[in-house]
Amino acid sequence: MYPNWILQRAYLTPTRAALTFGNNSWTFDQIKEISLNRAEQLAALGIQHKQRIALLGPSQPRLIFMMYGCMHLQCEMVMLNRKLSKAELEYQIQDAEVEVVLVDETDVDILPANIQKLTFSTIEESKGVKVDIAHDWPVDQTITIMYTSGTTGFPKGVRQTVGNHQSSALSSVLNIGLTEEDVWLCALPLFHISGFSILVRSLLYGNEVKLYEKFDKECAVQDIAEGRVTHMSVVAVILERILHGLEEKQLKASPKFKVMLPGGGPVPKKYLERAHQLGIAVCQTYGMTETSSQTATLSNKDALRKLGSVGKPLFFNQIKIDANEQGREGEILIRGPHVTPGYIGRFAEKSPTIDGWLHTGDIGYLDEEGYLYVVDRRSDLIISGGENIYPAEVENVLMGHDAIREAGVCGIEDEVWGQVPIAFIVLKSDISEEELQKYCLEKLAKYKIPKQFYVVQELPRNGSNKLMRRKLKDLL
Amino acid sequence: MYPNWILQRAYLTPTRAALTFGNNSWTFDQIKEISLNRAEQLAALGIQHKQRIALLGPSQPRLIFMMYGCMHLQCEMVMLNRKLSKAELEYQIQDAEVEVVLVDETDVDILPANIQKLTFSTIEESKGVKVDIAHDWPVDQTITIMYTSGTTGFPKGVRQTVGNHQSSALSSVLNIGLTEEDVWLCALPLFHISGFSILVRSLLYGNEVKLYEKFDKECAVQDIAEGRVTHMSVVAVILERILHGLEEKQLKASPKFKVMLPGGGPVPKKYLERAHQLGIAVCQTYGMTETSSQTATLSNKDALRKLGSVGKPLFFNQIKIDANEQGREGEILIRGPHVTPGYIGRFAEKSPTIDGWLHTGDIGYLDEEGYLYVVDRRSDLIISGGENIYPAEVENVLMGHDAIREAGVCGIEDEVWGQVPIAFIVLKSDISEEELQKYCLEKLAKYKIPKQFYVVQELPRNGSNKLMRRKLKDLL
Repeated sequence: MYPNWILQRAYLTPTRAALTFGNNSWTFDQIKEISLNRAEQLAALGIQHKQRIALLGPSQPRLIFMMYGCMHLQCEMVMLNRKLSKAELEYQIQDAEVEVVLVDETDVDILPANIQKLTFSTIEESKGVKVDIAHDWPVDQTITIMYTSGTTGFPKGVRQTVGNHQSSALSSVLNIGLTEEDVWLCALPLFHISGFSILVRSLLYGNEVKLYEKFDKECAVQDIAEGRVTHMSVVAVILERILHGLEEKQLKASPKFKVMLPGGGPVPKKYLERAHQLGIAVCQTYGMTETSSQTATLSNKDALRKLGSVGKPLFFNQIKIDANEQGREGEILIRGPHVTPGYIGRFAEKSPTIDGWLHTGDIGYLDEEGYLYVVDRRSDLIISGGENIYPAEVENVLMGHDAIREAGVCGIEDEVWGQVPIAFIVLKSDISEEELQKYCLEKLAKYKIPKQFYVVQELPRNGSNKLMRRKLKDLL
Repeated sequence: MYPNWILQRAYLTPTRAALTFGNNSWTFDQIKEISLNRAEQLAALGIQHKQRIALLGPSQPRLIFMMYGCMHLQCEMVMLNRKLSKAELEYQIQDAEVEVVLVDETDVDILPANIQKLTFSTIEESKGVKVDIAHDWPVDQTITIMYTSGTTGFPKGVRQTVGNHQSSALSSVLNIGLTEEDVWLCALPLFHISGFSILVRSLLYGNEVKLYEKFDKECAVQDIAEGRVTHMSVVAVILERILHGLEEKQLKASPKFKVMLPGGGPVPKKYLERAHQLGIAVCQTYGMTETSSQTATLSNKDALRKLGSVGKPLFFNQIKIDANEQGREGEILIRGPHVTPGYIGRFAEKSPTIDGWLHTGDIGYLDEEGYLYVVDRRSDLIISGGENIYPAEVENVLMGHDAIREAGVCGIEDEVWGQVPIAFIVLKSDISEEELQKYCLEKLAKYKIPKQFYVVQELPRNGSNKLMRRKLKDLL
């Protein structure tokens, strides 16, 4: 059993700053009080202890309070991605067998019409009922469920337990250290593990989170230059904008700023060099939804010496390569207390691990010193501005259209987003690009829609007729 | 499964300083190599994988290398206290069913003659054999066994597992923070949890340990004043000597020195005030063998405001008082992943917990803010210079003498040691003080031997004839 993080943190450091948003600030004790109130309000509206619910809303304190209210009730929280299409959201809500979605008013229209909803205002304005709050949580209790795709093209709901989140936060602290003055800037979506893990760390570490609703270059540059924040998780495209902002204003990072943690794909060497010039330590990371955030991190010291590497595993994690020889490329396998125990819904029976090892589908190697290099992301994964796009998922949608016989999707490099998806299609009957776009908009999040469609006669396939996505680009 | 701490640390930060002793220093990689060699040598001499062995030796690097060699073999290490009498050591060795004691040559004479021994030199000089080293350890694997007494007077062998040690180190880091520059001064015995836990932290945190064979006031004062160390665990008597040493030389602690962690009994207010004057942050702690080190710690900020308190539990720990009302005194109960799963030997069947709660036998209360105050140590525990003395154990020994009918032991205040034991005896036949002293020396560690013997007609007993130790002092 582990203590309820929210109650324990409020007990240990009640008066410390926990959250800042714009001009408002909350201590851990205040957050406890508000979240306990939410729990009572949720209970009054029929939300049961340990019920699985979904959450949807912009990154604002009220979303956090709502999440913490759910955590007091030990609910399993399905974290909905605000960028998804109605069809995608419907799939997740059905797969998770969620009866009700707790939704910020501003996001009601994002949801399919037929879904049962409770708006944040309804909850916040209701009168609570007395409810028993667990003071401790079992290590295998599911806190969050986040959907991620894979080789099949069908998103899988990944369980992230008390033990997963905790060991992730603890492994990380052994790597980057901790002081009472630490303040994390959170400008990543809270529905992604990159954002949510910042909240978990705050509860465990007792440090402040400075929350942004959206990334704001001017504010971030100021916060970093003035030492208002000490840590920030980013994706490469955001890092570049911050570097650019500092350079533009001829500012440097404050010496109080400790580390920038980029995830979701490689950081170009020139960014690292510019960061170095601006006094920003960069620790590149490698992680995924199934590992509740970072599994490996490259220290700033090694940033240039081991360019292209994502570093070594964090303390409680193990990484091995499924290859015959040391130093050879193979599938990256991960083991540790941060690895998900499994999926929900249609993939509930599918084990994510074999003999305790998570098979990532990513290809990589370990150099002679044990540094990990990721050479190819799983399932030809496309990473666009930190969001994962699985070609199989986009192909499935395209092939669902009557006019399309075959589809192949791959990523191409993009100045702004790192990568963007493009599609190659074999037609059954004619279709206009506008029609295609409209069809995709109904079915897919915008960031997943191919930026270009190329009509071809046939797709490159191997002997067993399997699509060879890596050869798609040769058709250009 | 958790990684073998020694291998994982050497993999992650091979070149960082791990240990300093006098003018010698070792990196984590060097410690790994030496300890792997020890494991191979131990195996060559017949030590089996997972065998239970005992260790005895002064606090020197070679003892640490020997321990780590045993840890590679996943041996259960019974940590023998060098201050014990032969009779006490024999009891522990028999109770633990240890077949062989690994002993530093200098300590051979401390052991009973009939015990099977392997000296450190024999091991260090032998040729190793190839042996399989586990790369990960189960969470419930016993790392150490430390003997502690209690109400019965018979010492109990307490298991301390991978999970116990780990969660203790992790809880502590969430409380006091961590930076790469941290260096712990270790001048406490490695056979006690207070010393051994410094080694565990070093492996998990990746920080350096500066080891002293014995406490040395001059060196410690210099290390603290020059910022050569950042953390130190102490008992009150040692803290006072350091304060005195600094005052004598008109020195202050370096700003690099972060925190002094006193355990094993209360720190007098005047020490805290002097520490404050000298720039030393003091965080008083409360812990025991059964909780693998600290279970609660008072922050330096609260040191004077909450004088006499041992603070709040560490993050993963819970403390409650077995009393009817909030704020009332009662037995202190502890729960958390740091609590021992149980004992070995004659107490193997006795569970240390009830419904997951460790019943400490200590009496205390929580104030309205949740700060713990220990008002009476378990079983009238006497704490003398940081060593625990259980009256029942000493009484048992005294009553084992033909001339003694009854015995009662309690502690009195002492300028140097905090407390020292004294004894009240009812005689069957005459006996000289010299005879008594000689008899005790054979049976008891020196620090446990009563400083005074008072012959009385009868001992204070309650209605059910139970000795009332608290009334003993009234006989003076």
